This record gives sequence, C-alpha cells and structure tokens, in this order.
Amino acid sequence: MLAGVDIGGTATEVVLCTADLGVIDRLAVPTPADGGGAAMVAAALDTLRLLLDRTPGRLLGVGVGAAGVVDARAGWILVASDSFRDWAGFPVTATVEEALGVPAYLDNDVNAFLRGEVARGAVAGERHAFGMTLGTGVGGALWLDGGLYDGPHGAAGEIGHVPGFGDLRCTCGGRGHLETLASGRSIAARYAERTGRRATARRVAEAAALGDPDACAVYETAGAAVARAILVTAGLLDITTFVIGGGVSRAWALLEPSVRRTLTADPPVSGQPIRVLPAHLGSDAVAVGAASRARAELTTVTRV
Amino acid sequence: MLAGVDIGGTATEVVLCTADLGVIDRLAVPTPADGGGAAMVAAALDTLRLLLDRTPGRLLGVGVGAAGVVDARAGWILVASDSFRDWAGFPVTATVEEALGVPAYLDNDVNAFLRGEVARGAVAGERHAFGMTLGTGVGGALWLDGGLYDGPHGAAGEIGHVPGFGDLRCTCGGRGHLETLASGRSIAARYAERTGRRATARRVAEAAALGDPDACAVYETAGAAVARAILVTAGLLDITTFVIGGGVSRAWALLEPSVRRTLTADPPVSGQPIRVLPAHLGSDAVAVGAASRARAELTTVTRV
Repeated sequence: MLAGVDIGGTATEVVLCTADLGVIDRLAVPTPADGGGAAMVAAALDTLRLLLDRTPGRLLGVGVGAAGVVDARAGWILVASDSFRDWAGFPVTATVEEALGVPAYLDNDVNAFLRGEVARGAVAGERHAFGMTLGTGVGGALWLDGGLYDGPHGAAGEIGHVPGFGDLRCTCGGRGHLETLASGRSIAARYAERTGRRATARRVAEAAALGDPDACAVYETAGAAVARAILVTAGLLDITTFVIGGGVSRAWALLEPSVRRTLTADPPVSGQPIRVLPAHLGSDAVAVGAASRARAELTTVTRV
Repeated sequence: MLAGVDIGGTATEVVLCTADLGVIDRLAVPTPADGGGAAMVAAALDTLRLLLDRTPGRLLGVGVGAAGVVDARAGWILVASDSFRDWAGFPVTATVEEALGVPAYLDNDVNAFLRGEVARGAVAGERHAFGMTLGTGVGGALWLDGGLYDGPHGAAGEIGHVPGFGDLRCTCGGRGHLETLASGRSIAARYAERTGRRATARRVAEAAALGDPDACAVYETAGAAVARAILVTAGLLDITTFVIGGGVSRAWALLEPSVRRTLTADPPVSGQPIRVLPAHLGSDAVAVGAASRARAELTTVTRV
C-alpha cells in the first residue's frame, strides 16, 4: 500500500492507496496551521496511523503534497504562505520517514494535483498536460514528456501570477495577474465590487446558477481569463491538454461556456485543437498525486 | 568544417564554421522565394559551394534554419508563410544530402537563432533560456535543461501569438497578441496610427533616437510588451535568462529602459532575478545555430 497526504491551509487529507493508486480509504482532519510544522506533520501521521489500523497491510511509502514553494529533492518547504507557522524549513520527509520507517516524498500541492490527474484522473496517461487549480489563489503545474517539469528553481507553472489579465492589483503586489480574475478570493471581490454584497465564491456560484447577472458576469470573466491563460500556455509550450481543478472549478458549468467561446474566438496558431477538462479526482487529487510520486520514486529505485 | 544556412524571406546567408562554431567565412544572396523550394535550396547550395571553393576543407555536415513550422526530424517544412512558394513539404535535408553527400538537418529559424546564441552568443553555456526574435513578426524558442524544447507538435515557443497584450487585431486574425506591439511591422503600424506618417521600424528607431516623442512612445510600448512576455515565460517555466534578437532588437537602447522598468515594477513571484540580453551573433545567429544543430547531431551519432 501507499499513502498520500494533502496538507492544506484548512484541512489535511490522508488516503491509503493500492499499488495502482486506487483509494482504499481516506480521512480528513483540520490542519493545525498555527501549531507549526511539527504539529502539522504529527496530525497527518496520527491520521495515517488510524487508517493503517483500519486497513492492515504493508505500507511501502508516503507522498506528501503541501502548499508553497517546495524543495522536492530535499523534502522541505522553501517558501510557505503566512497562514502556516514555522512551516518553511521544517524537515517534512525526514520526520515522516523517522516515524514510519518507510521512504517519504514531498511535492508542491499543485504539482501533486497534476500528478494525481495524470495518474488516475481526467488526463490519465497524457504525455503533455497543464494543470490549473482555481482555489483561494490560482496555481499551475506542467507535465512535459511524461514527467513533472518544475523548472530550474522549482517554481515552474506559476500561471496565477503572470501578467496580461487586465490591471487589477494582485495579492502578491503585481498587477493584471490571472489570479485577480479567476481565484475564489477574486471572484468574491469582483462580485462585491459590482453589487456591494459580500459573498464567498461558492455563494456567487449559487447566485449565478439562479440567474444573478452580476454573478454570471463574474464567472464569465473568470472563464475567459482561464481560457487566455490556456492559450498562453498552449502557445509557449505547444501543450493541448488542460485539466482545471480547485474549489472554483466545481462551478465548471458556469466557467465552461466562456472558456469555450474564448478558445474558439482566438485559436492557437499551431492549429492544434485544445482539450480542457475539469478535474476528476476532486478532493483526493493532491493526496493521490502525492502517493503517485511515492510510487514513481519507489519504482525507479527498485529498477536501479 | 560545418556549414550553416539561414533561408530567410529576403536573404539566404551561408556560413562555414570550424568544429567549435567559429565563423570562417560567410556569404549572403537574395532568397528566390517565389521560385519554390527547389530554387531556394539550389541558391543556398550554390552559395555554399562558392564558400567551399574559397576555403577548402572537409565538410562534415550542414544545418539549415528556415521560417515556418518545421518537422525537425523528417527535415521538411510543415507550414510556410505566404511569402514562400512551394516551400511546405519540400524535402530540404534530403535535397542537401543528395547534393553534398553529408548529413543535413533542418530547424525552425527561431530555434536555430537560440541554438546559436546558446552555442556562441549572449547566453553561451546556459542550461535554461528563452530566445525572442523581434523581426517582421515575433518568434520565440525554448532551451530547457540544456536542449531545445520544441513541444509535442514542434510548435513550442510561439510567444508572438499569445494574448494578453491589449486588443489590437493581429496579422494571424487573433487579438491582443504580443506581435501587435513588438514586431517591426507593428512598430511601423503603431507609428503611422499616431502620426499619419509611414515609416519602417528602422526609420521609427532613427526618429526616436532624435527625440520624436511618438517614435519614442512606440518603442517604449514595444519594450513594455516584451517585458510582460518575459514575465509570462518566467512565471510559467521558471526561466530567468532571456536573449532578444531580430532586426527590431538592433534598437535595443530604445527598448531596454521600458523592459527594465516593467521588470522592476512587477517582478516574478519566484523572487529570482531576471537577465535580459540583446543577441550577440547578429545576422549570423540563425546560420551558426543551424550549424550547431548539425554539430550536436553528428556528435551524438559518433558517440553512439
């Protein structure tokens, strides 16, 4: 068996998988984000031990997915968001390995999401794909030539903070980034600007589903921005397969029409048709993807 | 010796290089673009034979760089611009190999440009770099992990036709592409719109150098657009080294201030500093880069 851990800002999900990444069992607990790295990893380990008690079997390895810029080789977080205390620099994989006596691996959560969708999800088996997560923020990850591409400094795929999407101020301090139009936080902010009403992105989606024109317009703008980001990525990397996940993508029915319209109006010069798919694995994606990293590493070691 | 051939829309340049890609001799002739593929390759071969007469030695291989979407494995052009007659589908490398009895290789010209700059130019020895050519149109090429990355369909690097650069209509039919602001054709068009005066990009550069505020503004806008394209590429691919070539880049002194200003105002979230360099090899870049492809292929064959 393999375990996958998704350490998110609010919840930590742990899954137990078969060797072919089928989920045997799962459990989610609140993330003790203000307790520091030791508390966060301890919570994940306690949850995993509960799952192992429920489903006895031999654990071969653990994959962990976490937000932030990650050193995937050394197994710790390089840069964490402010919502996590004492997380950057915490030796995640070393702590897990010492506790469980099996190899552990760490990935950025968006990279893990894409690994999961390539391993068992919407883009299963693709050699080239781009994954985009529309959550509180917007993240991206690249799958090139059958492997994750994280770039020379581990920061590839940062589609949320590239310019070319209007002129609004971004949370990062920049202007006109994709995240100002397509993140959950931005959908809420754009709706509040239009209506004076405060609502979460989920509530805005519910209003849009009931025909609220402002809510519809906000989701339409988000979808068009996602499509332009797809066109940029397709143009630069010649990628034609895209998978969209994250909480905002649950309102795929609201996003899809303007995604399609924008792609049709301005097709890539390569002439290649573009496939855009909503994620399949839902809240399991990061944990399953983290487990798939563990599987890939263990397979490589075995072969060597 | 290696030969490099740059088949452009107006001129064909041939260089003879040493094994370490130093240019021994060069010669440029007009490209018989309306004579079809056979005439174009014949003109290049005649020019190369003249050079070989002048500098006797053993020719090991020939690299050819040409505009358009190229099948770099099969050695022909897949999609050519309208300015070339009977060019798409012409068996470029087979014709050269039959005429000269040495291996020949074909590359897209922008890819060859970047190969040249990585081999002996502004970004010599870099493992990761992006090359942008500001010519009649705008092209791009990717160097990832020490090799050219041309994508699953040979069309990677197409930065000229990605959206996010305003709303002007592009020659390709799209809107807001980088090429509408930063190509030579667009610099001429934007200047004509502001002033009612028709002038080539080079004349606009001369006017800007003399203080013409409209000419300065057009180059400033082009520079800011180039910088935004750099930020998009840096964000997506975690690349920090950029080389800018093509005819428009000869006016680097006019572009550079707004490139720097834009990069400073909106630095990449990775925090990595970005290096932007003007190309070093001038009009030799494509031919030298094509020769470097031949060298790389021949070295690989020898090693195997």
